[in-house]
Amino acid sequence: MGGFSLYLLSSSLLSSAVYLSFFLSLGLVLNYGVVGGLAASQESDRITWLPGQPPVGFSQYSGYVTVNARAGRALFYWFIEAPPAAQPAPLILWLNGGPGCSSIAYGASEELGPFHIHPDGKTLFLNPYAWNGVANLLFLESPAGVGFSYSNTSSDLYASGDQRTATDAYNFLVNWFERFPQYKYRDFYITGESYAGHYVPQLSQIVHRKNEGIQNPIINFKGFLVGNGVTDDYHDFIGTFEYWWTHGLISDDAYRDLRVTCDLQSSQHPSADCLKVLDAATNGMGNIDPYSIYTRPCNDTTTLKRKLRGHYPWMSRAYDPCTENYANVYYNHPEVQKALHANVTGIPYPWATCSNIVGKYWRDSPRSMLPIYRELIAAGLRIWVFSGDTDSVVPLTATRYSIDALNLSTIISWYPWYDQGMVGGWTQVYQGLTFVTVRGAGHEVPLHRPRQALVLFKHFLQNRPMPAET
Amino acid sequence: MGGFSLYLLSSSLLSSAVYLSFFLSLGLVLNYGVVGGLAASQESDRITWLPGQPPVGFSQYSGYVTVNARAGRALFYWFIEAPPAAQPAPLILWLNGGPGCSSIAYGASEELGPFHIHPDGKTLFLNPYAWNGVANLLFLESPAGVGFSYSNTSSDLYASGDQRTATDAYNFLVNWFERFPQYKYRDFYITGESYAGHYVPQLSQIVHRKNEGIQNPIINFKGFLVGNGVTDDYHDFIGTFEYWWTHGLISDDAYRDLRVTCDLQSSQHPSADCLKVLDAATNGMGNIDPYSIYTRPCNDTTTLKRKLRGHYPWMSRAYDPCTENYANVYYNHPEVQKALHANVTGIPYPWATCSNIVGKYWRDSPRSMLPIYRELIAAGLRIWVFSGDTDSVVPLTATRYSIDALNLSTIISWYPWYDQGMVGGWTQVYQGLTFVTVRGAGHEVPLHRPRQALVLFKHFLQNRPMPAET
Repeated sequence: MGGFSLYLLSSSLLSSAVYLSFFLSLGLVLNYGVVGGLAASQESDRITWLPGQPPVGFSQYSGYVTVNARAGRALFYWFIEAPPAAQPAPLILWLNGGPGCSSIAYGASEELGPFHIHPDGKTLFLNPYAWNGVANLLFLESPAGVGFSYSNTSSDLYASGDQRTATDAYNFLVNWFERFPQYKYRDFYITGESYAGHYVPQLSQIVHRKNEGIQNPIINFKGFLVGNGVTDDYHDFIGTFEYWWTHGLISDDAYRDLRVTCDLQSSQHPSADCLKVLDAATNGMGNIDPYSIYTRPCNDTTTLKRKLRGHYPWMSRAYDPCTENYANVYYNHPEVQKALHANVTGIPYPWATCSNIVGKYWRDSPRSMLPIYRELIAAGLRIWVFSGDTDSVVPLTATRYSIDALNLSTIISWYPWYDQGMVGGWTQVYQGLTFVTVRGAGHEVPLHRPRQALVLFKHFLQNRPMPAET
Repeated sequence: MGGFSLYLLSSSLLSSAVYLSFFLSLGLVLNYGVVGGLAASQESDRITWLPGQPPVGFSQYSGYVTVNARAGRALFYWFIEAPPAAQPAPLILWLNGGPGCSSIAYGASEELGPFHIHPDGKTLFLNPYAWNGVANLLFLESPAGVGFSYSNTSSDLYASGDQRTATDAYNFLVNWFERFPQYKYRDFYITGESYAGHYVPQLSQIVHRKNEGIQNPIINFKGFLVGNGVTDDYHDFIGTFEYWWTHGLISDDAYRDLRVTCDLQSSQHPSADCLKVLDAATNGMGNIDPYSIYTRPCNDTTTLKRKLRGHYPWMSRAYDPCTENYANVYYNHPEVQKALHANVTGIPYPWATCSNIVGKYWRDSPRSMLPIYRELIAAGLRIWVFSGDTDSVVPLTATRYSIDALNLSTIISWYPWYDQGMVGGWTQVYQGLTFVTVRGAGHEVPLHRPRQALVLFKHFLQNRPMPAET
C-alpha cells in the first residue's frame, strides 16, 4: 500500500488493468454508443428484484447518467430510498475514494447500504444498521472508469483527476435531479470517505457556488460529511507517520526517514525517494490489514476458515475481512448486472472493486482541501468530519493535524460520546465543523462499527452534538 | 487513574485502607509474631488441593518467608512448578507493580498462572497458555502490605519504596532458596510488568552484584523480562502523552498542557499542577479501560450481562473485563486462605488486588531505570522488554522512547513477528536488549493475548529472536 496506492481500497485486483490493456490493444473499446442521460426515464431505472435479495419495503433504482455526451462518459448510480414511513427523508450522495474505487463495492455493499453480500457471492442479507432507514442513499461510481461507469473515449481512463471528477459529478447531479424531479429542493448532503476527502469538498464547492444567489435551488445543498478523508497532504503525512510510529507499525529509523523524505510531498505524486521510503515502511508492517490494524486481514479464505474452525464460534457474526471479494463475484454475475441495468454497453473489462488504471494515472490532485473548508465554513454549511481510530491509511492523527491547521475556535471541548453506555469515541465541536472519532473502527467506519456509525449519521442529519451521557 | 495511581491496577478497592485504619486506631496490629522463614519446611508449604481446583499434574507450594525479622516483615509466595516431564525447567520470579498490587491477583490469576477464576469466585479453570508448561513460576506478593504479605511494624505500610522493596525481595530469594534447595543453581529469571519495570531491574541489579566474583552462584541469575514497564519518567511521560493524543484519547489542548506541565515530573511524585492536568486528561477519556483501550471496561457485572445477553454469544470465551473481581472473592474465602497457608496471623484487613495505602504512601522512586539497564546490559545478562500496544497506562511509545534513550546499536532491525500466520506484533533486536510488541494486547499482555504471550516467553527462555515466518 505504498505511495500512490495508499488510498486504494484494494491492490489485489489487477484483473481490470489486464483486461483493459488487452482490449485496448485490439482497438475494441472505441465506441459503445451513448446510453442513459436525460433520455432514460426514472421508471426504467427501477430495480424490480436483485438476484439473492431478501424482501424489502423500499424502492431502488439504478442506471446510467451521461455526464459528457461528446466524450461518451456515463456514470453509474444506485439509488436506494428510505422506506415510505421515513419519508420525506433527506437525500445523501455517498462517494468512495481510491482514487478509482467503487461506491457500490464499499459504501453500498460493505458499509451503509441495506444489502450485504454472503460469502457465496450470490445471496444478499440485510444490514440492520443501513443508513437508508433515515435517508435516501445515492451511491455513485465515480469517475468514469470506476465500477460500471465508463467513457467511450478510452484515453479518459488514463487522464482522470480531481477537477474532471468533480465537474462530471456535478453534471451527474444536475441530470439525475431531472430524472428524479421529486427530489428537487429536498435537503441534500454529500458524504464519503478516504480519497473522497477530496471529492466531497470539491463537489460541495461547485454545488455551493452554482447555488449562490439562487433563492430556492434545485440542489438544496445543506452540508457534507467526510470519514477518514484525505484532506491536506502536509498535515496528513505528518499525522500518518506519527500514527505509524505510535502504533508500533514502523521502526524509529523508518519514522525518521519518512519525516525527512516525505513530509513536504504530494500524496498522489510523491517523489521517487519518498515512494521508496514509503514502500519500505509499509512493507515492514507485514501481513496486517492497514485499514484496520487490529483485525485479521483477508488472506486465503480457505485457510482462514480452517484456522477459525472451532476457535472462534462467533466468527459468523463478527466482521468478515474478506467481504470485498464477495462483491467482486456478485457484481460480475450477468443476471445481477441485468437487474441493475448495468454494463448495458458491454464494457470490455470486468467490474472491479477498484480500478488500478484510474488510480495509477491520476492527474491533478491539489495538496490541500483546507481552502475549500474555509470557504464552505464561512458559507455556513454543515460540515462534519469523522475518523475510525484504528485505520493506519488515513488515520485519526492526520485528520487532527489537518483540522488544527484550520485554526477554528472551539464551541464544545473534546469529550467522550456514548452508545449503549460505552464510549463510542470522542468528539469536539468547532465553530463551523464537528469532529467525531469512532473507537476501534478502521478505515470503513460503517463496516467496523455499524451501530455507532448510524448514531453518528443520525446526529449529523439532526446537527446535534454526539451524545455525552453514559 | 491520574497521577500516582497511574500504575495501580485497581482503584476500586478502598476497603483495605478502611479496615487497616480501623484496626490501627484500636492498636490491634502490633505483634502477630514471626512465622515462616527458615524454620518452615518446604513440605509444610505444599498445597494439597485448592478449593474449586481442577486436577493437575504439577506440584505447588505457598507460604511465608520472613524478610526482616526485627520489623516482622514476611512476604507471601505461591510457587507453581512445571510438570515433571518438563523438568528441569528454569525458575521464574514474576512481580506485579502498582506499587501495591498483588502478583497473585494479576500474574497468577489472570495472566500466566495455570488457574483462572470463574465468575462465581469459587471455582478455578485451567489456563491452556500457562507459563508453567515451560518454567517453574514463583509469584511473590511484594512489598509487605500487598496481598497476604505483611509487616508487624504497621508504619512500614506507610513508608514503602523502591529500595526496601528490592532488598526485601532479595532477602526473600535467599531464604526461599534455602527452603527449596533443589532450585539452587537452576537457571533463574526475574520477570514482571507495569511498576515492576522498577522492581525487576532493581532486584536484578542486587542479585547480579551479590553474585559478582562467585564462580557458581546459588541464585543462578540469567536475565530479566519486563512488560509495559515504567522505565524512565521523562521518556515515559513524553511517550504516554503522545500515545494518548495519537490514539484520540485527549484533546489538542490537554496534550499541550501535559507537555508543558508534566514532561519533567516524577511519575510517582508529580507536582500538584501536573497532577491536576493529568487528572483532567484522564477524566476526559471517559468510561474506557485505560489498560486496554479497545475492550469493554468492567462496570456493573449485572448490567454487563444483561446488555450482552443474546448479542454476544461468544462472550463466555472472550476476555472477561471483570476477572479481577473474581480474585477478590476467591482469595478472601477462609478455606482458600487455609489451603494456601495464607493469612496465618490474622491480618486485620481483607486480601485485596491492590493496596491503596502502599501505593499512596510510596517513598523513593528513582526517575530512571536506564542506568541499571546499562549496567546489566554491560554485564551480558539477557534483557527482554515487551509492550502490549493497546495499553494507555504504560504505553508502547513510552517504552520506545526509553529504549531509544539507551542508544543501543541494532542487531536485527524492526520486523513483524508471526504466530499462526498472523502478525503477533513487531520486534527489534538491539545489542544487549530485545524489544517485542504484542499487537492488540493491553497492559496485561498474557491476559489479552495468552497464546502470543507464551510464544514470547518461550523465545525469551531460548534467547531466540521472535519468529519472522508468516
